[in-house]
Amino acid sequence: MSVLVVGTVAFDSIETPFGVAERILGGSASYFALAASFFTPVRIVGVIGEDFPDEHIELFRRRNIDTDGIKREKGDTFHWRGRYHEDINLRDTLELHLNVLSGFMPRLPERYRDAEYVFLGNIDPVMQLEVLNQIHHMKLVVCDTMDHWIRESGDNLQKVLKRIEMLVINDSEARLLSGESNVVRAARAILKMGPKVVLIKRGEYGVLQFSDSQVFATPAYPLEEVFDPTGAGDSFAGGFLGQLARSGDASQRGIRRAIVYGSVVASFTVEDFGVKRLTTASLPDIEERFERFVELTDFHT
Amino acid sequence: MSVLVVGTVAFDSIETPFGVAERILGGSASYFALAASFFTPVRIVGVIGEDFPDEHIELFRRRNIDTDGIKREKGDTFHWRGRYHEDINLRDTLELHLNVLSGFMPRLPERYRDAEYVFLGNIDPVMQLEVLNQIHHMKLVVCDTMDHWIRESGDNLQKVLKRIEMLVINDSEARLLSGESNVVRAARAILKMGPKVVLIKRGEYGVLQFSDSQVFATPAYPLEEVFDPTGAGDSFAGGFLGQLARSGDASQRGIRRAIVYGSVVASFTVEDFGVKRLTTASLPDIEERFERFVELTDFHT
Repeated sequence: MSVLVVGTVAFDSIETPFGVAERILGGSASYFALAASFFTPVRIVGVIGEDFPDEHIELFRRRNIDTDGIKREKGDTFHWRGRYHEDINLRDTLELHLNVLSGFMPRLPERYRDAEYVFLGNIDPVMQLEVLNQIHHMKLVVCDTMDHWIRESGDNLQKVLKRIEMLVINDSEARLLSGESNVVRAARAILKMGPKVVLIKRGEYGVLQFSDSQVFATPAYPLEEVFDPTGAGDSFAGGFLGQLARSGDASQRGIRRAIVYGSVVASFTVEDFGVKRLTTASLPDIEERFERFVELTDFHT
Repeated sequence: MSVLVVGTVAFDSIETPFGVAERILGGSASYFALAASFFTPVRIVGVIGEDFPDEHIELFRRRNIDTDGIKREKGDTFHWRGRYHEDINLRDTLELHLNVLSGFMPRLPERYRDAEYVFLGNIDPVMQLEVLNQIHHMKLVVCDTMDHWIRESGDNLQKVLKRIEMLVINDSEARLLSGESNVVRAARAILKMGPKVVLIKRGEYGVLQFSDSQVFATPAYPLEEVFDPTGAGDSFAGGFLGQLARSGDASQRGIRRAIVYGSVVASFTVEDFGVKRLTTASLPDIEERFERFVELTDFHT
């Protein structure tokens, strides 16, 4: 079962305590697509500029990612420049150039419109609504957002929340969206806004999953080296939804295992700059780390 | 099998966003002892002043905590005053009066000296060494410490670390002690200092356990309301070592289950001011929440 992702395809320029990378492949849709492509075919919808190199498109294609939904527009590609602190959990945005992203309205190729698994990456809720209006049958829609849209486009975001099954969100964004400082209360408040499931990402501390009837808590995979945290959240979402599509198992157990797969894929992403580790890791690597993850959290068996 | 704890018996004056409590029972030994007493008899060693009320001693005794090792000295009891921020993970120490604690050297009653399970609470490493010298047979010694001792009494702390089995420590203290900013590398460095097991407490994010051969990661029990975090770490240690003593199971599975019991007891502690919730919760309450914890972390079965 293929997965559809709508989000940014971008250039990232990144400085971490361990090195510097200039204008490498980035963007929420890129990370999500590469992460999900371990498990299932992916269709990507986004916009790029004239400066976007064919080699990135070819990378997507080699990974069974359908790029017909990527539109090339006049102008430059969306470009983010950021610097991570010694405490790698903190970062500053140094530059943000929307370029071709400003005013972009996603149009899905006709054959994308029967998508069953959909990820609405972190873009303007107006664009997310536009995508929802173009899809005929939806089995499962997962959505991401960020503080900027919560503050600036709250009404549209509320409309999106009423039409999706699952929201993936950072803990600080969950607090902002709900007005609750406690993360459990924040999740309960967000469930009332529409989604059936809320996934709260806590970076190196793991993930909390809430629905009306249950809670799931898991730590993150403990890493000796976090090289570049960029894209960890989108890689998590990609691994999560990719595994859900692969297994077709949306039972509580299936969702929990997909959360762990998402965490495993994210743990690879942060081991190197940008998407690099997503292109060097293999599905057997992921399966092996999943088994390690089972083992290092098990007091149940 | 009984557990011996050496630590502070104190007055705490606490301000949280939810209320104020003046000169209530506090101290590392008090929290540890009450937490462990759900599982096993406890012997407590510490010092109090003339102002320490008999009712607290009676509370200990009702909970099968042997208080013959608590020495009453001329002067006032150790007193800490602190204030928690809106972000309940942050606090300021407003006052710290060592009083009778300054110059205290623990002397164990003769019949305490065959203790098998020992917890060296967060006190001067010189006192911790003194206790180790007085014990004949030790099955398992668990130790806590804090940034102050790491900075001011590092040499003595290193001597302690060579003589204990397990160190329980916060993540920020682990970074300070090891000089490593990554928590996994910090734990590996501390294992080289002596302890066979390092338990890293991450507050609301859970616990990591490291030994040479394996890693265990668990989230904390997700709570809708954290009323007062004081004593959570010592309650964790008390529940952990109490359960180990109750079960006599120091296998990896036994240690993991004890970590979860410790987390469960700590989750009760923070639900009310000071030690209050430790006096209103019952062992069946703890067992029930342990089962809930199993359920909310399970993707294994």
